[in-house]
Amino acid sequence: MTSQPKVIAITDMPTQEAKWITLKKIKYMDAEGKERLWECAQRTTRRSSGIDAVAVFPIIRSRTNAFPVSTVIIEQYRPPIDKFIVELPAGLVDEGETAEEAAIRELREETGYQSSEIVESSPVVVADPGMTNANMKLVILNVYLEDKLESPDQELDSGEFIVRRVVELKTLYNVLEEYDHKGFAIDAKLHHLAAGYALALKGV
Amino acid sequence: MTSQPKVIAITDMPTQEAKWITLKKIKYMDAEGKERLWECAQRTTRRSSGIDAVAVFPIIRSRTNAFPVSTVIIEQYRPPIDKFIVELPAGLVDEGETAEEAAIRELREETGYQSSEIVESSPVVVADPGMTNANMKLVILNVYLEDKLESPDQELDSGEFIVRRVVELKTLYNVLEEYDHKGFAIDAKLHHLAAGYALALKGV
Repeated sequence: MTSQPKVIAITDMPTQEAKWITLKKIKYMDAEGKERLWECAQRTTRRSSGIDAVAVFPIIRSRTNAFPVSTVIIEQYRPPIDKFIVELPAGLVDEGETAEEAAIRELREETGYQSSEIVESSPVVVADPGMTNANMKLVILNVYLEDKLESPDQELDSGEFIVRRVVELKTLYNVLEEYDHKGFAIDAKLHHLAAGYALALKGV
Repeated sequence: MTSQPKVIAITDMPTQEAKWITLKKIKYMDAEGKERLWECAQRTTRRSSGIDAVAVFPIIRSRTNAFPVSTVIIEQYRPPIDKFIVELPAGLVDEGETAEEAAIRELREETGYQSSEIVESSPVVVADPGMTNANMKLVILNVYLEDKLESPDQELDSGEFIVRRVVELKTLYNVLEEYDHKGFAIDAKLHHLAAGYALALKGV
């Protein structure tokens, strides 16, 4: 990376100029039979799977118990926030792909880690249902390594700048706090997962 | 509730007609110093706190240990998804309010439960940073009850139809699975919190 990414200008965008997102007006009937309107943003990229995106929660385990159970998170500049964001590995589901295939692919591309063991694939969940129809799956994947935490090569597209960070699972919540103090923004889904994990560890 | 809410029609909406959401074009400089464009949806409702919304994770405790530690989640029809969604109590931050004040207010309005004890208030986290600038805080609140799980009255606006459900914390993840099987959609943040909690309980 040679320079600090930054926003130069933000301008209004007419709906018909937008390629990736669009605005929709929804006419609906409420629970009292009354017609009402709702405004909604939609991605234009949803393919035949019907699922916009996946996030991956990788569980990295040593076959020889040489290191504690860990995960890998990523750092990436996001123009809508104009900051570096700490996120789960994630991406859009391509045409012809299942969400689980997309999860395994995104993990390999963004972090280099290979997994072929799905621990769990969530139902289709909705990201921000008051504002958008965006939906996703959370796929939990096992990654088995031998006795060392290797760092396999990422497979990034040109123009993609993603830093990965391996974190011991038990320290994830504290690591996110440190990121916050350093000026990163934290993705809400990663934060909620870590908060749930930390609450259970504390015996709540 | 007298009828089943449902979407009647979805139409394109020009940006200048939208009141609650807008589209923006962002010109930014990437890490190689190259100018690029990004499309972004924004809420128009952000107030001076700079925080769009709060979600609340209430921890309901009996002072006499008469019932297990529980939480309360809500069911609500959401036009962008055209389904009933299971969510954390949540809402937009009003003008002149802190995120924590909004959390206590939304919990009272949507569920009837009163709390004045903040367990933890998250950093400002970002909901879907590839698509929008939407941000929020997760506020964890303690609710103390005596020996019975009372159901205090909600304070809903006209046109608001919210069903609350008290759930034992240890069963939250399974309860969400049941909701999925019944055709509800699950909010991603609630799902991630429950998934993190369940992983830690399983000893992962």
